Amino acid sequence: MRVLGIDPGLTRCGLGVVEGRVSQILTMVDVGIIKTDVDAPLEIRLLQLEIQILQWIERAQPDVIAVERVFSQLNVKTAMATGQAAGVALLLAAKAGIPVALHTPSEVKAAVTGSGRADKKQVALMVQKLLRLDSIPKPVDSTDALALAICHHWRGIGDSKIQAALAQEKARLHQRTTPSIKAATQ
Amino acid sequence: MRVLGIDPGLTRCGLGVVEGRVSQILTMVDVGIIKTDVDAPLEIRLLQLEIQILQWIERAQPDVIAVERVFSQLNVKTAMATGQAAGVALLLAAKAGIPVALHTPSEVKAAVTGSGRADKKQVALMVQKLLRLDSIPKPVDSTDALALAICHHWRGIGDSKIQAALAQEKARLHQRTTPSIKAATQ
Repeated sequence: MRVLGIDPGLTRCGLGVVEGRVSQILTMVDVGIIKTDVDAPLEIRLLQLEIQILQWIERAQPDVIAVERVFSQLNVKTAMATGQAAGVALLLAAKAGIPVALHTPSEVKAAVTGSGRADKKQVALMVQKLLRLDSIPKPVDSTDALALAICHHWRGIGDSKIQAALAQEKARLHQRTTPSIKAATQ
Repeated sequence: MRVLGIDPGLTRCGLGVVEGRVSQILTMVDVGIIKTDVDAPLEIRLLQLEIQILQWIERAQPDVIAVERVFSQLNVKTAMATGQAAGVALLLAAKAGIPVALHTPSEVKAAVTGSGRADKKQVALMVQKLLRLDSIPKPVDSTDALALAICHHWRGIGDSKIQAALAQEKARLHQRTTPSIKAATQ
C-alpha cells in the first residue's frame, strides 16, 4: 500500500509518500512541499496548488490519500486558508477515485510517537527513525506529511473495507461528473 | 454585465445571478441554493458542490463571480467548511477564466442598505426592492447571494481593468493546466 500524506496549507503544503505492507518496514518514496505565490489572488493560488497536488498524485499513484484534519486553529483566517487547501486535495482525490482518510494531529502524533501530545521535534525524530532516513526532511510541513502517511499505514488496517466502499462510491460519482468537468476546462 | 453571487456553504450554498448595466435597473436572472448530502464524506460533499456550482456557471454564463469573503466566523469548524466551499467556487472560476471578486459581509450590507451593520431582514427587503421582486427569495442564503451580486454591480465600476487583467492571467494559467486536469479525470 502506498499512502500520500498531505499537510494542507496555501503558503506551504507538505507532501510525503510512504510505502509498506502490514507488519513490514515502511519506506519513504518521496517528500517535499508545494508553495504558492503569496502575492497572487486567492483563486490563482488555489489553482497553483491544484496543479501541483495533481502532479504529485499522478507521479506517486497512491492507493490512499491521507489529509490532516485541522479544526483547532485559533486563527480563523489561517483556518480558512488551510481548509481551502485541504478542500483542493480532497476534491482531487474524489475525482481520481482514490480513498481519502482524515487524521487529526493528535492521532498522527499518537500513532508515530505513542503520545498525542508529542512536540514537532519528537514527531520528526520518530519519522526519521521509522523510515530510516539519514536526516530529518525539511521544512517541518514535509515531515508532518510523512507522519500522516505513517499514521495511516498503522491505523488503516482495520477499516480497509470502508475505504474500498468509499472508493467505489467516489469512482461512481466521478464517472458521472467527468463529462461536465471536462466541458468546463475546455 | 452579469454577476453570479455565491454565498459559500457546504450544507447550504446560496447562488444568485443579477444582470445590469451601470446606472441601469438591475434584474434578477436566477436564484437558488445548493445542498450537499450531510451524511456523505467531506470529499464527496465537495464534489457534489463542485458539480452543481459548475452547472450554475454553465447555465448563467456570468461575466464575474462574486464570492463572500468570510473570515470573522467564531466557530473554526464552520469557518473551515465555508472556506472549503468558497475554495471550490474560486477554483471553478479560475479554471473558467471568469474574473473573481471577494466582498465582505459588511461591504455587501453597506452597498445594499447603506449601512455595514444592517441586519439580514433589512438586506433581504432591499434586495427585494432593488430587484423589484414580488417576494423575498427563501432561504436567506439565496438572498445573500443576490445581495453579493448587487454589491458587485455597484462596486465593480472602478476596477474593471484589474478584473480584465486577472481574467487574462487565469485563462493563461488554465490553458497550461487543462491537459493534466483532463488526464486525472480520465
